[in-house]
Amino acid sequence: MKIVNYVYRGEENYGVLVGDKIIPHRWIEAATHEKLPGTIMEFIFQGKTFEVMRHYSKLEEYCGKGIVSLSNVKVVQPVPMPRKIICLGLNYWDHAEEVGLKPPSEPVIFFKPWTSITGPYNPIIYPRITRELDYEGELAVIIGRKAKYVSEREAVENVLGYMVFNDVTARDIQFRDRQWTRGKSFDTFAPTGPFIVTRDEIDDPHSLRIVTKVNEEIRQDSSTSNMVLTIEKVISSLSNVMTLEPGDIIATGTPSGVGIFFKPKPRLLKLGDVVKVWIEGVGEIENKIIREKSWRNNH
Amino acid sequence: MKIVNYVYRGEENYGVLVGDKIIPHRWIEAATHEKLPGTIMEFIFQGKTFEVMRHYSKLEEYCGKGIVSLSNVKVVQPVPMPRKIICLGLNYWDHAEEVGLKPPSEPVIFFKPWTSITGPYNPIIYPRITRELDYEGELAVIIGRKAKYVSEREAVENVLGYMVFNDVTARDIQFRDRQWTRGKSFDTFAPTGPFIVTRDEIDDPHSLRIVTKVNEEIRQDSSTSNMVLTIEKVISSLSNVMTLEPGDIIATGTPSGVGIFFKPKPRLLKLGDVVKVWIEGVGEIENKIIREKSWRNNH
Repeated sequence: MKIVNYVYRGEENYGVLVGDKIIPHRWIEAATHEKLPGTIMEFIFQGKTFEVMRHYSKLEEYCGKGIVSLSNVKVVQPVPMPRKIICLGLNYWDHAEEVGLKPPSEPVIFFKPWTSITGPYNPIIYPRITRELDYEGELAVIIGRKAKYVSEREAVENVLGYMVFNDVTARDIQFRDRQWTRGKSFDTFAPTGPFIVTRDEIDDPHSLRIVTKVNEEIRQDSSTSNMVLTIEKVISSLSNVMTLEPGDIIATGTPSGVGIFFKPKPRLLKLGDVVKVWIEGVGEIENKIIREKSWRNNH
Repeated sequence: MKIVNYVYRGEENYGVLVGDKIIPHRWIEAATHEKLPGTIMEFIFQGKTFEVMRHYSKLEEYCGKGIVSLSNVKVVQPVPMPRKIICLGLNYWDHAEEVGLKPPSEPVIFFKPWTSITGPYNPIIYPRITRELDYEGELAVIIGRKAKYVSEREAVENVLGYMVFNDVTARDIQFRDRQWTRGKSFDTFAPTGPFIVTRDEIDDPHSLRIVTKVNEEIRQDSSTSNMVLTIEKVISSLSNVMTLEPGDIIATGTPSGVGIFFKPKPRLLKLGDVVKVWIEGVGEIENKIIREKSWRNNH
């Protein structure tokens, strides 16, 4: 199932995507007799997605009626206000090789703030205080229910679904600070979407092609099979540290081909560039780099 | 003004503390004719605190009526579900010296997840996967309104108030990962409180004594005057990176005396220890170290 958050005639709404038709959540209520909250974030927090998934076949009956066409709406971020965005460092063998570091046996993490989240087709703002803007195409896992102390075997049951994620990074700030957080925390530095693809649609999340393009030129072209720590291992390990909750996002790391490590020289993002991240079976996001308009220079 | 979040007769409520009496928010509504939300988190998100502060003198009339005595309630975390917890590294001259590092000219940050938040008198759980549990007493700033691109001069207007914060840390994980985040993200690793002391009560947040004790023995004893980057500088700088919002917590760094850098040898926390952090004019929190009961060993 694909869950979509969208704006239609000026109003934000969410629903289920069947083919190129959206079934708004009020229609899902009618079809399933499940009371649903008014926003996608509450829908996720309350764990309603699993209930709706059980009724998916009933929803297909509505398709012919062409309730809302995908082409008539603006698709926005499917998890607009997550309570955690947990990002993994060095979790692809090919990326660890280009960086020249040995991957860790437990997840090395940082958080992005929810204010960095933006939609699948929204612009990325190039901050004036960096000169090294870079992309990192990633598969993101969305947690569907509360999880603490889960085993690797149970871990997948806590996954609601997947989406595409771009861990946009100001490299100069990341490297100068050594702690990665600040350089990855700017507003618009986490484009996400286009939909939540529920886990039943993905046979094996560790065998998906993942491609990042800048202005149609391929920069990253790898497979989620190159992940060092599996999604199951990551969830289990993180759940020994912190309580995971519905709507938490885990960005599972980026493969090789990030701009800063390009040979013979870095190929970073410039104003006007269009970055696309595509993951097999999950979808594609496309974001243009634009200038930061306001800014406060205290120096 | 002091804002308190508390449990009385099994129900969570919030109010204003006057002396040792709590004026519950429903009484504040009656006194001020301001409609207030049902939870302290919504109260903060909606920026209602500033409005209530304007009416503070009216609230004092209620004191004599002895609505709820502080001693009859359980005081809980004053910001129970912040959307960001931004923590600063190396922001005290005396701490930078004990670590042997030059402090940065811009804030070096990491985030703690909101699930690490706990109350002022709740236990800290000693995780089984660490052997090096440590304290870091800190002054936390609570943001009161949305802020982006603010100058140092304007910064203070965005402060709602202050509270005491303990940035509890698993040192072995922090140092092994090199990224500080995971070792600081365990559940209960952010004891906070006891109240929100609004900014009008603190003449100068950069001249407060700050003391951490373990089992009544002083371990940290410094002053917020030893901060490297002022609160104004930190807010302004962070607001160039990310949108700050009501309820966001900024933990402003720890002074010298953390357990791991004790000479001649580290003095880390043990099961049963009681850690207190006290800040002049802000209050004291007190948390006991207890055993982690459940745990998943996948190895």
